[in-house]
Amino acid sequence: MTITPDDARALDRDDPLKDARRHFDLPDGLIYLDGNSLGPPPVQAKAAIQRCVETEWATDLIASWNSADWMGLPLRTGARIARLIGVSENSVIAADSVSVNIFKLAAGLLNAGLKGVAVERGDFPTDGYVLEGLSRLSGTPFAYVEPGAGAAGLPDGVQVLVKSAVHFRSAALADIEAEERAAKTRGAAIVWDLSHAAGLVDLKLAARGAKYAVGCGYKFLNGGPGAPAFVYCDPDLADGFSQPLSGWMGHARPFDFADGYDPAPGVARFGAGTPAILSMTALHGALEAYEGVDMAAAEAKARALGDLFLKAVDGLGFGLACPGPGEARAGHVSLTHEDGYAIVQAMIARGVIGDFRSPDILRFGFSPLYLSYEEVLRAAGILREIMDAESWRDPRFAARKAVT
Amino acid sequence: MTITPDDARALDRDDPLKDARRHFDLPDGLIYLDGNSLGPPPVQAKAAIQRCVETEWATDLIASWNSADWMGLPLRTGARIARLIGVSENSVIAADSVSVNIFKLAAGLLNAGLKGVAVERGDFPTDGYVLEGLSRLSGTPFAYVEPGAGAAGLPDGVQVLVKSAVHFRSAALADIEAEERAAKTRGAAIVWDLSHAAGLVDLKLAARGAKYAVGCGYKFLNGGPGAPAFVYCDPDLADGFSQPLSGWMGHARPFDFADGYDPAPGVARFGAGTPAILSMTALHGALEAYEGVDMAAAEAKARALGDLFLKAVDGLGFGLACPGPGEARAGHVSLTHEDGYAIVQAMIARGVIGDFRSPDILRFGFSPLYLSYEEVLRAAGILREIMDAESWRDPRFAARKAVT
Repeated sequence: MTITPDDARALDRDDPLKDARRHFDLPDGLIYLDGNSLGPPPVQAKAAIQRCVETEWATDLIASWNSADWMGLPLRTGARIARLIGVSENSVIAADSVSVNIFKLAAGLLNAGLKGVAVERGDFPTDGYVLEGLSRLSGTPFAYVEPGAGAAGLPDGVQVLVKSAVHFRSAALADIEAEERAAKTRGAAIVWDLSHAAGLVDLKLAARGAKYAVGCGYKFLNGGPGAPAFVYCDPDLADGFSQPLSGWMGHARPFDFADGYDPAPGVARFGAGTPAILSMTALHGALEAYEGVDMAAAEAKARALGDLFLKAVDGLGFGLACPGPGEARAGHVSLTHEDGYAIVQAMIARGVIGDFRSPDILRFGFSPLYLSYEEVLRAAGILREIMDAESWRDPRFAARKAVT
Repeated sequence: MTITPDDARALDRDDPLKDARRHFDLPDGLIYLDGNSLGPPPVQAKAAIQRCVETEWATDLIASWNSADWMGLPLRTGARIARLIGVSENSVIAADSVSVNIFKLAAGLLNAGLKGVAVERGDFPTDGYVLEGLSRLSGTPFAYVEPGAGAAGLPDGVQVLVKSAVHFRSAALADIEAEERAAKTRGAAIVWDLSHAAGLVDLKLAARGAKYAVGCGYKFLNGGPGAPAFVYCDPDLADGFSQPLSGWMGHARPFDFADGYDPAPGVARFGAGTPAILSMTALHGALEAYEGVDMAAAEAKARALGDLFLKAVDGLGFGLACPGPGEARAGHVSLTHEDGYAIVQAMIARGVIGDFRSPDILRFGFSPLYLSYEEVLRAAGILREIMDAESWRDPRFAARKAVT
């Protein structure tokens, strides 16, 4: 069954999220399927950063720590994220990077007496890299778990698992509730990496029993390149949690300038150094684009966009490195082709932005906030034309460069 | 001997750094003596961030990791800082916060076999807080050294000292060369905290034998609120250095997405997560204001401005919490008064911005880039008027709020 432009336009008319597009001012003619890597700026993010530079920094200067509440920005930003991931408002803080935040949570679990740290082989690499570093420093064992094995695959004596809620390559969704149950029976804890899930999947973390999570601000949350990441900690556990990157911004009274660390109550103790206010202001502003967005609708639309794309490119000779149409999948799709890099470049030359992941994966992300069904169908049509004409064989598409 | 406005204007005429003021667009009538806490934006910083938002992020989107060389930004920013602190261009990386970077260096020294971590009592608190966290996680002892005792004061079995090159309260300058000698005889290592020194003091770190340092981007470097910090590591030691926050941006080939951490050569391995590009772009732009600035002249001017201020407020009833006129002192002065908070507020109401540090310290910073002798003399005159009229007794100046 072929999907026609009329079908796509009908889907757009009925789209409960169609109004969210007004928050974005994308370049003319571009179809941006890379929001899973770097989201585009919502207009609120641009306005926020301009205000931060011109008024808060340049004019009010040091007073802005109070007058613009820069001091409260990490928790105010966290509160906006909390609703999107399904946890209580006061249980999230924006801070540092995913890598650094994984270290805080995993190391804090070691401080609480757990032993051993693990990651699934093939999960997003930085998660494992950081655990290697933690293992070497603390002397706790580091282990790989087989892909998809989850908490049930933890070797004896390893009690901390870092696992993506959505896999960066396959977009496969983890079963958070089942994983938490499996962890509990082993006396283990899971640190969820929400990088490819936050702002897209209706995570319902608290209801599903998740206790600890980190996530990325610059993908589906559209917070800007290298936007601050975030930490979630179950509020019933936060007051007893001891994380080792105990900088002054996690202190109960940073402006006492007292010797001796006394952690702030709750999730605020996951603050470390002075937050990157310019970057965090962009993220805080960007999150306004999520006001009124129902996360169940967002997840459903992202999957429907991906399903439409997969159906429309069926038969073009790609392998499938993600769940297929109608299956549980998050916000991107992954195709395989030995000339994937050149094909992605040929698409970029035609105004369709996706990305390439070694060794052979073409990845296309479907943000539910600014993409229409019609655009996604048009992108698939362009890919079809490129494959039919073999226009990716043009030598200018051959050279490889690293792209995040 | 009273200093007259004519004297001050004569000093300004002969100021070798007088041209640097053109890089700043400070609010009319404001005398900003708080660059030691938050530097104002150089025009280059504002231009850089606008370009980053409008062109790099909004228009070029994901391609900017290559086309705008976001990938290289941490090392390009580090290279601009390197000259200011007197080390080779390829030995500094901009990354994370001071707190996080202290952890990287101190923990890496433990990985290299050193034992025990220490900080001077009364040094900037976050340095000690982070070492407490490292101690708890790794099991290495944590100790306080008496104020000013330095490496010679390290207890037996403690080999890592974090010490400010310029003390945040007193502006006292450490003797880097002597400290490094004392450390060497004990088999110890010093991590220098340059937060109140970088961009102000002619540090000559390499010539003075310093091996490891961190510093702050948002004080005298004017990089914006919460600007990324930096790490310096002696290039002869960097390739053997193992820091535990081993995120993907410190990997030799991050875009291989391979399991197993393989550190990048040199100081690049101090990268951790994805850098906060918006904030780092502001810092990178801000550093253009230092082009052509001789650091010996910068240090001399800052001290001369401070000397002028101290002489001009002599006899007003303040205690002195910093080295006096003509003594070795960095870029700020610290006065004491039991009503210091209200006095600082009264000055702010008159357009002179300084800051207050518990319990009783009035702190005034003297950036050599944008302040004139005449302005500093005028600020001292305003303080004299406030003290003479006791106008700080106005109740609206009494309420305390935290200000960084």
